[in-house]
Amino acid sequence: MIRVSDYIADFIYKLGVSHVFMLSGGGSIYLDDGIACHPHLKEICVINEATAPMMAEAYSRLNGNIGVVCVTTGPGGTNAVTGVAEAWVDSAPVLVISGQVENKNTTSYSFIKNIRTLGCQELNIIDVVKSITKYSYIVFDPYDIRYHLEKAVYYAKSGRPGPVWIDVPLDVQAAMIDETFLKGFVPELLDIKTTDRDIDKIIEFLYNSKKPLVVIGQGVRQSGSIDDFKKFLDYLQIPVISSRLGQDILSFDHLCNFGHGGFKGSELTKKIMQEADFILSIGSRLSVPFIGSPVIFSKKSKLVVVNIDVVELLRRDINIDYHIHSDIKDFLLKLNNKIEIIDHSIINESYKEWLIYCTSQKKEKSLVNVEKLSDPIDLYHFVSRLDVLSSERNIFVSDAGSSYYVCGQSLSFSKGQREITSGAFASMGLSIALSIGCCVADPEAQVLTVTGDGSVEVNIQELKTLSYYNFNAKIFVINNGGYLSIRNTQDKLFDGRYINSTESPLNFKKIADAFNVPYFFIDSYKNIDLVVKEVMRFDGCALIEVLCDNKQKIHTQY
Amino acid sequence: MIRVSDYIADFIYKLGVSHVFMLSGGGSIYLDDGIACHPHLKEICVINEATAPMMAEAYSRLNGNIGVVCVTTGPGGTNAVTGVAEAWVDSAPVLVISGQVENKNTTSYSFIKNIRTLGCQELNIIDVVKSITKYSYIVFDPYDIRYHLEKAVYYAKSGRPGPVWIDVPLDVQAAMIDETFLKGFVPELLDIKTTDRDIDKIIEFLYNSKKPLVVIGQGVRQSGSIDDFKKFLDYLQIPVISSRLGQDILSFDHLCNFGHGGFKGSELTKKIMQEADFILSIGSRLSVPFIGSPVIFSKKSKLVVVNIDVVELLRRDINIDYHIHSDIKDFLLKLNNKIEIIDHSIINESYKEWLIYCTSQKKEKSLVNVEKLSDPIDLYHFVSRLDVLSSERNIFVSDAGSSYYVCGQSLSFSKGQREITSGAFASMGLSIALSIGCCVADPEAQVLTVTGDGSVEVNIQELKTLSYYNFNAKIFVINNGGYLSIRNTQDKLFDGRYINSTESPLNFKKIADAFNVPYFFIDSYKNIDLVVKEVMRFDGCALIEVLCDNKQKIHTQY
Repeated sequence: MIRVSDYIADFIYKLGVSHVFMLSGGGSIYLDDGIACHPHLKEICVINEATAPMMAEAYSRLNGNIGVVCVTTGPGGTNAVTGVAEAWVDSAPVLVISGQVENKNTTSYSFIKNIRTLGCQELNIIDVVKSITKYSYIVFDPYDIRYHLEKAVYYAKSGRPGPVWIDVPLDVQAAMIDETFLKGFVPELLDIKTTDRDIDKIIEFLYNSKKPLVVIGQGVRQSGSIDDFKKFLDYLQIPVISSRLGQDILSFDHLCNFGHGGFKGSELTKKIMQEADFILSIGSRLSVPFIGSPVIFSKKSKLVVVNIDVVELLRRDINIDYHIHSDIKDFLLKLNNKIEIIDHSIINESYKEWLIYCTSQKKEKSLVNVEKLSDPIDLYHFVSRLDVLSSERNIFVSDAGSSYYVCGQSLSFSKGQREITSGAFASMGLSIALSIGCCVADPEAQVLTVTGDGSVEVNIQELKTLSYYNFNAKIFVINNGGYLSIRNTQDKLFDGRYINSTESPLNFKKIADAFNVPYFFIDSYKNIDLVVKEVMRFDGCALIEVLCDNKQKIHTQY
Repeated sequence: MIRVSDYIADFIYKLGVSHVFMLSGGGSIYLDDGIACHPHLKEICVINEATAPMMAEAYSRLNGNIGVVCVTTGPGGTNAVTGVAEAWVDSAPVLVISGQVENKNTTSYSFIKNIRTLGCQELNIIDVVKSITKYSYIVFDPYDIRYHLEKAVYYAKSGRPGPVWIDVPLDVQAAMIDETFLKGFVPELLDIKTTDRDIDKIIEFLYNSKKPLVVIGQGVRQSGSIDDFKKFLDYLQIPVISSRLGQDILSFDHLCNFGHGGFKGSELTKKIMQEADFILSIGSRLSVPFIGSPVIFSKKSKLVVVNIDVVELLRRDINIDYHIHSDIKDFLLKLNNKIEIIDHSIINESYKEWLIYCTSQKKEKSLVNVEKLSDPIDLYHFVSRLDVLSSERNIFVSDAGSSYYVCGQSLSFSKGQREITSGAFASMGLSIALSIGCCVADPEAQVLTVTGDGSVEVNIQELKTLSYYNFNAKIFVINNGGYLSIRNTQDKLFDGRYINSTESPLNFKKIADAFNVPYFFIDSYKNIDLVVKEVMRFDGCALIEVLCDNKQKIHTQY
């Protein structure tokens, strides 16, 4: 016999998960105890549940497995909604386990429609998260626990990954069960594979194209296909542009890589996207900020989309000439096999001129490595220096607004580093949480985080978590006098009529001191290298305020 | 012709609302501009959208009207979910207006089921909040704006109040419309009234009872019936016990009032609830923590429930002998009219003994006014002193955990003050936000806030908002070494096996300094009066750390 909460803890451990991101509460008291009592599982305790799924998201992205969160009932669950929505839009496998009041005191068990709440701190959280999770369930019967956990994890990790939610009432958490009577979940095997016809079509498109372009998204990484993709590139030497979350798949130094495209891409990526006559999108959802609205691709170009999420193929705002609903790995394996046996020199001979043309403009029209040797510090210059000074050991984290844009435009990933950021949502204030998730997933890594004075305030409470565990994350706070990107929009639309975008930043020296985080200051371009090297030299957390141009313009393409 | 965002701003102003709680964003850029450009409307800008609906809730509770929030798309909306859930379970009229991407880039407009996101920072927020709002709608057509705003406000304020949500795409926000073509919303008139039969039944129950008890909830206040209720009490002199949110309706000094009942009530309220032979519940949802699980009322007692929310009358976890689906004001008016014309002395003569019996124990068995003249400071003693030193001008705000319990058990409301707190959810970390909402609603008031070292961390970022506007709120932070009430539960269940409940509190002196809030310290019972009087003497914000017993026991009744 085993207590359900201990069963859950062991289930999490057996997933290959080492840490649970959590905040204790009366409604999850047995779940918390189960995690604490497990001999190998460790807890990372946050200050506000909002950040727990963000940490779990970063953790899952780095270890390629799944991140686990445990929260209490009522506000514990609702606080976690943003992080779950993040995992939903950015396809991160995250399992949230929430405590709930006893079965008999839940609104769902009452079967009274529209009753707002019953037990202490009670809410039907499943109704709230249903539309932003792949699976969500309240487990009424202790003997159902294995089935629903297995089902949830299967959904989180299979197909296009995403968040799942299991709600566990207090009496279920505390119940004693005989493990031998637990039934498991047997998934229907879905064969989402590429057909011979699909491959023939691709080859046909390739033969007919003079200026092909490959767009890659994080699906290439999530399907474990980076090597297969590189093999494909070796064969064909086609220009590549990446989505924001696909950006750390290839080094910018790679002959075929032209970096991140879209609204906040570079002049060059815009040009390539406009001029290409065939676009093959692999594992990217072709977001609106990426493709533009109206779409930037030439009307004469052909578009083929390969995606494991079938709904992404039903879009009507883009003209898809051919779509392939397939696992990316299977697609690339089959495509590579075909290319191997055909005379691909015939194909890529004709691309040479196109690649040379693109490459000729790579230096001048891409934003990477802005050199500005004067003050105030240009954010592009700062991020370029950070990039140059970084090593294989570093993981980049970027926050919303200007940090998000500039990291997207200036990081080169030349040492194979990862970048963790909020992709589709570009939310403010995730960076401390994402940094912590990275440190937990990879204790040997050193995290370099770029956030803004506006963003960092949003979840500033997690500086306590950062300092408590002394995670090896260096938080560079760009002080540019408030919400820079909002000011930029207000300049454009309202002729500089500012609202809620010019409030003074916090006193970061005092904030760092109050949260017991070592503080550094970069006030001139002359000190960038010195201070960055200094903080990189030691392990542990640091907050580095970087005084930047408060009139910084962000380069936008459309 | 008028821009939709200006129409919305003026609509808000014409509701009688003076301030909007907001955080600017790219997805709400025209809404923000509309609010800023309005000649009379003012904006209160928060640091994390999470707190905006909490402020609006407090604002609406104090002005008896409605609170309005404006947030941006994606994370802006999801961040606000907890506050909306709060308003849902605690019946506060709150209107959230959210920005959304352009119509054509929304998932709802795409009509593709299960597509996760489309435009920049886009999410179908309506699906997320549908189950925790009375009305929610995305306005695709600029000419529908008036109809949906009017409908939303009607739902928010009518019947049992609650939150509503209107999502406005960017192109709708920016559209120019001719006001004369806007159609309005005409509500169906619902007559939720008390019948003659209902009144006859109540009179019958009253005649047959020797030990009646009236339970009051905030419905008495929300229906504008406090005076009617007092008139009823004058006639019949029946003991009254209040729900947590009904607590500030009557002074504890009132002859008939025995204070707040329930799990965290007093020994006396428990006794009265157990011994009463007839319970008349008016405008209370009889929450599980109030009535107990199993229910604490005697099986022989009769229970009549009067509520405007019909679903609360369908509960099967309590035995309701008779229920009245009615507006509380209508119920009390009709009941008072009837009592006036019958010989009510026959009724209340028989209650005298019962009232004397209850009153005889009022001092000894209620927790109000704990005197403990030694250190460490007892939290009950501290709150009692705060109560004694307070004046008509003060509004109390309490946070979750021990602050929530002790304020519920120790405040007397003898000067007619209000208390604003998180009722059904008892969420951690709302108190700064609630305090700000109170200050905005009543600029002449001085807010006395009791929060814990665990709770205050959760939304500590709003200290910046507090200090920026220098609101007249005194934040008393009870330092008792972390999550006291979690430790109490862990003591009980796991023999003191603590998890995530003993982390050191923040250094509040440094925190206050970092956020530019004046800091005070109470380290001994001897200084309580001195420091409390000192901070009351000036207008503006202050953070007062109160070093309390970290082994404080909270009195629980069941």
